[in-house]
Amino acid sequence: MSRSDAFLLVNFKTYLEATGKRAVDLAKKIEFVGETSGVKVGIAPQFCDLAQVAASVDIPVFAQHLDPITAGANTGHILAESIKAAGADGTLLNHSERPLKLADIDRAVALTKQTGLISVVCAGNARIAAAVSLSEPDMVAIEPPELIGTGRAVSKENPEIVTDSVKKIRRVNQVVAILCGAGISTGEDVYAALKLGTTGILVASGVVKAPKPEEVMADFCEAASKGQ
Amino acid sequence: MSRSDAFLLVNFKTYLEATGKRAVDLAKKIEFVGETSGVKVGIAPQFCDLAQVAASVDIPVFAQHLDPITAGANTGHILAESIKAAGADGTLLNHSERPLKLADIDRAVALTKQTGLISVVCAGNARIAAAVSLSEPDMVAIEPPELIGTGRAVSKENPEIVTDSVKKIRRVNQVVAILCGAGISTGEDVYAALKLGTTGILVASGVVKAPKPEEVMADFCEAASKGQ
Amino acid sequence: MSRSDAFLLVNFKTYLEATGKRAVDLAKKIEFVGETSGVKVGIAPQFCDLAQVAASVDIPVFAQHLDPITAGANTGHILAESIKAAGADGTLLNHSERPLKLADIDRAVALTKQTGLISVVCAGNARIAAAVSLSEPDMVAIEPPELIGTGRAVSKENPEIVTDSVKKIRRVNQVVAILCGAGISTGEDVYAALKLGTTGILVASGVVKAPKPEEVMADFCEAASKGQ
Amino acid sequence: MSRSDAFLLVNFKTYLEATGKRAVDLAKKIEFVGETSGVKVGIAPQFCDLAQVAASVDIPVFAQHLDPITAGANTGHILAESIKAAGADGTLLNHSERPLKLADIDRAVALTKQTGLISVVCAGNARIAAAVSLSEPDMVAIEPPELIGTGRAVSKENPEIVTDSVKKIRRVNQVVAILCGAGISTGEDVYAALKLGTTGILVASGVVKAPKPEEVMADFCEAASKGQ
Repeated sequence: MSRSDAFLLVNFKTYLEATGKRAVDLAKKIEFVGETSGVKVGIAPQFCDLAQVAASVDIPVFAQHLDPITAGANTGHILAESIKAAGADGTLLNHSERPLKLADIDRAVALTKQTGLISVVCAGNARIAAAVSLSEPDMVAIEPPELIGTGRAVSKENPEIVTDSVKKIRRVNQVVAILCGAGISTGEDVYAALKLGTTGILVASGVVKAPKPEEVMADFCEAASKGQ
Repeated sequence: MSRSDAFLLVNFKTYLEATGKRAVDLAKKIEFVGETSGVKVGIAPQFCDLAQVAASVDIPVFAQHLDPITAGANTGHILAESIKAAGADGTLLNHSERPLKLADIDRAVALTKQTGLISVVCAGNARIAAAVSLSEPDMVAIEPPELIGTGRAVSKENPEIVTDSVKKIRRVNQVVAILCGAGISTGEDVYAALKLGTTGILVASGVVKAPKPEEVMADFCEAASKGQ
Repeated sequence: MSRSDAFLLVNFKTYLEATGKRAVDLAKKIEFVGETSGVKVGIAPQFCDLAQVAASVDIPVFAQHLDPITAGANTGHILAESIKAAGADGTLLNHSERPLKLADIDRAVALTKQTGLISVVCAGNARIAAAVSLSEPDMVAIEPPELIGTGRAVSKENPEIVTDSVKKIRRVNQVVAILCGAGISTGEDVYAALKLGTTGILVASGVVKAPKPEEVMADFCEAASKGQ
Repeated sequence: MSRSDAFLLVNFKTYLEATGKRAVDLAKKIEFVGETSGVKVGIAPQFCDLAQVAASVDIPVFAQHLDPITAGANTGHILAESIKAAGADGTLLNHSERPLKLADIDRAVALTKQTGLISVVCAGNARIAAAVSLSEPDMVAIEPPELIGTGRAVSKENPEIVTDSVKKIRRVNQVVAILCGAGISTGEDVYAALKLGTTGILVASGVVKAPKPEEVMADFCEAASKGQ
């Protein structure tokens, strides 16, 4: 994924609005807005929905987590090959709702490389964002946990954390794509994020819980087109 | 699931032999043997394979784990409704490779009841087997972790742990179905398990890693028919 | 500890009011009230304070947690022998702020028996209280997490959970002592707890954060004398 | 602690040879060797032994772990103020036997700064060593988990991991002291470690489990004097 293109990634979390058939429906709506606007969009549904969703859309599909394990006796864990076999393209890692031990982030990123999955590692502050960049993931997503789900966008409430993250990340990694997230709910928030030097955004409730997700996405995509 | 019928449950763990398309193939083979032998069989594939497998077979399909959460902001977790929406019938809980906090087992079993999923709670010894029975799951599976994957069957190596578990479980719960597992690899092991008072077995590598899983299953099913 | 005597156990948690020298001071005050009132009292200070506190008082001293490990390469863990060597008499286990996997509770209780430590296993509801009783600890403490730290006493807000726990515990274990806790802040709460069939209470902020902990304890002890 | 002086830190883990009174005895022996040789030595005993050990020696005493919590309702956790009140000077963090989530390492290092404790963050490889250096701890200890307890010293078995770590750490942090550990058991191992550009070593079984720990320490200290 080239750094010059904005990327909007929608995390479905475990919202009922994005479970089972509703995950497939939502994925199609998001794909449609992405296609019509010409902006790159992606989605991260639940594990049990991955295969169905991946079979229904052509946009990049991400798992929400990956366990740092290899094939074998690991009942109840998430295997990289299994995500890949479901037709997904990548995975989130270290989301603040599913935080990982540092050594496990490093191991999980290595597994994504071996399996050909795109890695998006989340980080709650600038130091952590730089730290995870050292494992050379494809993308880092800066998400201050205190703003997640608040509707107060990181890019407007705390732009310093974004610019500081970009600065600290670039000192150690010049190629990783940088997303930001937490509280993103309007096109303005998206535009502000891109102006701060990010490649895109990670959003969840702002889209998934919206009465009309496709309208929110259209707003985001329009802003993204201007922001680049 | 009535207690009088033997039940053979195959845990796919995260074996490559049971990932993606190979999960679907293996599921069909197991279903075929179950149908031809008239013995109840079930399978527990990985989360990402649940929907595909459930769409391909009519035997009971189980998840390998369930997180004690409700719908919402729980990135990377396993929601009961999501397992249900994938077409699965139940879930394993507290496998020794995915152990749960006691309060979480209790919560997860309650969630399976609310969602209409069959719960199979694993336990490593007789005291723990009785303890989890108090949460009133549908089935308890006794699996001494030290025998898992060894090929030395619990029902022959340590029959006392099985009979002791049955006794301790029945003191607190008269209806829960009782499986036993760990090291099961021959029909004799299955027969021995049923003779010890269990309703069936939980097996993994003994079937999944076998050169011809269908032959092992046929052997198990024949023994199960005799053992009831 | 005989079941016929009331027992009041004060959990110091990680309150600054009960850290370092202040832990020793508080321990002495609690001991003094216990001695003058003739009621059995005990305390559970932080690990780093255990040895100092145990050397300063003669009442039973408990650790707040124990890891299910044996001597060896376990950096940063809590070894039973180390609690014992510090002069402590027992340990809390499975507090809702330090919940344990079920198999680990069973293992930890076994370790307390081997080391000669008194075990107090916490449980958030009646089913869990009965479940942990199967591991045969010395005491079970019923603490509904939703009432902890609220000042609304379990024995008055939710007496049913206490009586139901006592009933369910006694079905599987006739000898374990039963404490109850959460929200206990007055002598009346203590009296009510004993009248519900418990042997005593587990309390934390109600004593530790009180302006005059010795007065609260005196109130508790008076109520305990009446309640037996 | 200045970077120009070699520093030898002995982790007592949960070895019985270093529990209770034996922890105090071992601490004194290590102090004696340090004093007579003029080499800086430190020790990391178990939590329950911290206060006794700190009261018995003048060398730096470290906890083995710190929880990323502040004072309050955190039963069974390790509070920074409690380590400080016990007379300890610092703490290990993220040892491979007590790994931490990345966000928790960052939080715990911040807590050590607020409390005036020296932080020693462990890391299993060069990328992780650089990553934890971004949180600006006082020291980083490189310990490849696969060599821990083997008697095959990292400084001789895998010198590249040490030089690579030093290089990667220095790119992002010019002041952090760098220790290395795992398998260190002879003076030669210590000498090799210092020659690779480290400030000292982290050792455990090589000293604690030795028949005569003071002789091993004397050997280490002699090598350290030469190696600087």
